[in-house]
Amino acid sequence: MIRNSLTDVFFTKDDVENLHEGVLRVLSEVGVKIENDEALEIFKQHGARVEDGTVYIGEALLNKALETVPANFELQGFDRTVQVGLDHDPVVIPTNGTPLVLNFDGSYSDTNTDDLVNFYKLIDTSDVMQVTSEIAVDVPGLDKTKDSLLAQTALLMKYSHKPIYNILGATIHNYKKGSVAQGVRENIQFAKKYYGYDDKYVIYSGTCVISPLGVGWEAMDHFMGFIKENQPISITACSMTNLTAPGSLYGSVVEDAAAILSIVVLSQLMNPGLPVLYTSLSSMSDMRYVQLCMGAPEFALITLGHIALANFYKIPVRVGGALGDAFKTDYQAGVESFVGLMAPMLSQAAMIPHGCGTMGSFNLTSYEKFIMDEETIRYLMRLRRGFEVSDKRKEKALKDITKVGPRGNFLGGRTPKEYREDNYLASEVFNRKGCKENTREEQGDIRDRAKKVYDARMEAYELPDTTLEQKKLLNTELPEQYKFDL
Amino acid sequence: MIRNSLTDVFFTKDDVENLHEGVLRVLSEVGVKIENDEALEIFKQHGARVEDGTVYIGEALLNKALETVPANFELQGFDRTVQVGLDHDPVVIPTNGTPLVLNFDGSYSDTNTDDLVNFYKLIDTSDVMQVTSEIAVDVPGLDKTKDSLLAQTALLMKYSHKPIYNILGATIHNYKKGSVAQGVRENIQFAKKYYGYDDKYVIYSGTCVISPLGVGWEAMDHFMGFIKENQPISITACSMTNLTAPGSLYGSVVEDAAAILSIVVLSQLMNPGLPVLYTSLSSMSDMRYVQLCMGAPEFALITLGHIALANFYKIPVRVGGALGDAFKTDYQAGVESFVGLMAPMLSQAAMIPHGCGTMGSFNLTSYEKFIMDEETIRYLMRLRRGFEVSDKRKEKALKDITKVGPRGNFLGGRTPKEYREDNYLASEVFNRKGCKENTREEQGDIRDRAKKVYDARMEAYELPDTTLEQKKLLNTELPEQYKFDL
Repeated sequence: MIRNSLTDVFFTKDDVENLHEGVLRVLSEVGVKIENDEALEIFKQHGARVEDGTVYIGEALLNKALETVPANFELQGFDRTVQVGLDHDPVVIPTNGTPLVLNFDGSYSDTNTDDLVNFYKLIDTSDVMQVTSEIAVDVPGLDKTKDSLLAQTALLMKYSHKPIYNILGATIHNYKKGSVAQGVRENIQFAKKYYGYDDKYVIYSGTCVISPLGVGWEAMDHFMGFIKENQPISITACSMTNLTAPGSLYGSVVEDAAAILSIVVLSQLMNPGLPVLYTSLSSMSDMRYVQLCMGAPEFALITLGHIALANFYKIPVRVGGALGDAFKTDYQAGVESFVGLMAPMLSQAAMIPHGCGTMGSFNLTSYEKFIMDEETIRYLMRLRRGFEVSDKRKEKALKDITKVGPRGNFLGGRTPKEYREDNYLASEVFNRKGCKENTREEQGDIRDRAKKVYDARMEAYELPDTTLEQKKLLNTELPEQYKFDL
Repeated sequence: MIRNSLTDVFFTKDDVENLHEGVLRVLSEVGVKIENDEALEIFKQHGARVEDGTVYIGEALLNKALETVPANFELQGFDRTVQVGLDHDPVVIPTNGTPLVLNFDGSYSDTNTDDLVNFYKLIDTSDVMQVTSEIAVDVPGLDKTKDSLLAQTALLMKYSHKPIYNILGATIHNYKKGSVAQGVRENIQFAKKYYGYDDKYVIYSGTCVISPLGVGWEAMDHFMGFIKENQPISITACSMTNLTAPGSLYGSVVEDAAAILSIVVLSQLMNPGLPVLYTSLSSMSDMRYVQLCMGAPEFALITLGHIALANFYKIPVRVGGALGDAFKTDYQAGVESFVGLMAPMLSQAAMIPHGCGTMGSFNLTSYEKFIMDEETIRYLMRLRRGFEVSDKRKEKALKDITKVGPRGNFLGGRTPKEYREDNYLASEVFNRKGCKENTREEQGDIRDRAKKVYDARMEAYELPDTTLEQKKLLNTELPEQYKFDL
């Protein structure tokens, strides 16, 4: 197992305290604008200064709230649970909300409901993903359903054995029966009813703050609904340097941390002990093109800053992912996936959103990249397991080296246990067969190898074994073409 | 700047001492087989036990030799010097000795002298490479030259402003005038004469030990020649787990470290203060295909083990590179380059061999991957520069955030200094222009973007401004078609 966190390569203890001081000053001197009167009232009741819709949070109130944030929690899925938090390896979860898909034939198309189902199957059969979620929302194919908010949640639940993350927020477009606040709660209650638990965490969700230092009304309805329904929330910042954050990485991190912490504090004031996830997907902008760069080294650096801070606050942190700016599964995509994954994979991160398949600066999800990113995650899992140094390893190595001697060879007999433990044998997605002409021909293109894996997984997929009652419940909301045939 | 080494993520101090104990036991209990009587005699004179061609080195002799290993040294090129060592950033150097090239049109062909020249130009115009070297040796196109050893050195020198690394060893095939030992020394003297220095390090070189724990006679002639001519040496291990090293990473590292250290000790006994580089390119083998895997996470782990040990011994270490097992510049190639480069780039490594363009498990050098790997190195250089946390950054961020306030925006006025310092703007090789249909079309394929960069560099290349005397000297050895027209 890794001995220290990758954050230690980039930050000393003093650095983290310096960042924390910056966060405190932003929280107490600049404040966070929150578009929800009930929330502002709660802050006021707990002694925070509130002026013109902006809340100013002091160190004492922050510390009080941090005391009740759980270090770990359990998510309940259809037939399994997943442990999340400071004492566990990072839980990898899928991408959310990209408008386009990159198809195996190289074409780009709008994400539709069939894509959703394909990805739900892919996620459900993935050995690296533990949680599922909508990979896109409000997509074509849902138009005819009466209420697409619940339809999409039903679709996600129908195809998933794994716990669900619900990126989908209620909006005035996807929920028409009542207010957005009502929609959020009806959606949660629908999930509770389907899973049959009122007291477990069966759905967790989050949404974005608006950088700098704002939380909009729809986001607030979303957070308030989850807090009241006692389901975990994730609070996400996604800022761009020199546009919605200062030009420096320092400024980016302290600004976003303050915004995230304001909702962390609120959650604990309203519902002490509610699991919260501190999420950042902030990165640099390339001012030449006014573009958010999700494959940049600065993305890893900003992510590491947030991990260091969240670890300091002891809040489970949800960061990073196989993101990037490439729009093909090319060399750049490989580098970028590694850049975005290494920070959380080699640190104490609780969750990794956008774990597989995202690219094109959040605009694109790629089938083949999903499969390739799984292998990159396995590589990083191997790195996370570390380099075993122990007296056991020493004695066995000395014994073998002595036996073989100079110029000898270690082959022969059974493959030793330590070889199997220390050497990860890659999946067929990555070439390991050498570079001779015949192996080049045999191995072909990585995109074809990914397609093979995809086909096998689609073949192997099985629906969760729902009860008749569950099927009937889902049918009340599922889009017509995805209803169970009862 | 990074605050700590990536080795600290994987090893505690105790771990490194444990590895060191393993190394000592291998050195003193198993020994290293050295095929050179003169070397064995020198070991004996300094009190080492020598039996049947195997030398056993104890802790005292090792420590005595380590005392005189220079922490830093300077390489002299045609018109510039390069600082190498523990107090400097890693020096990136090119690949060596791959038999095949991957051409821009996707074809594979045997590396020939025209490829050498193309790559020398590419290396010479590279902003990330500080040293040049033969990218392949004994290639077609040299056959007609009377002595290809000196011909190849002449070719390398003709095209290079940068200091040279001479992977080429004298062999019975490329040097016919006398013994291999003589060939090594004539080659060095040729370089000294060309550069006009007898007292500077104008050529450095290294070769491989034979794992486990052997150094062959040709390699010994090579090392002895460089030690006697007072030019730096690099001692390279390249073992495979479970084949030429034990199955565990622990065994791999301690075995190779012992072999490398035996030549480090010899160099200091013969020529105290001679610069030496501790080099490992060892990795895991995939026993399913009996393949050396140069893109595996275990390559990074083994590399980090060697960096930790070499740092412990205070020997400049030369490790890692943009290696890999992919044979196309695909997603796998990107991941693998990052895996192989991150260990030295985020640690205290002195040099990174195989910095750009290598793939196919050491069999292949790719033009386009060279260009792409340069960008990956720039990404890692940005990571190495770290995340600036300082009171200056804090005060500026607070000032900006206060001025802008919640929901404001930071754009406007001149781009602030800290944006320019903290945000690296990628080269055109990587897409940064977004993922809309028009930018996708404009950006096209990364391979075409790499080709554009290549063409511009070939265009911009200029030969070193050699004197008539230098030209005449080179002409005595250059292959016919590369001679200066005098």
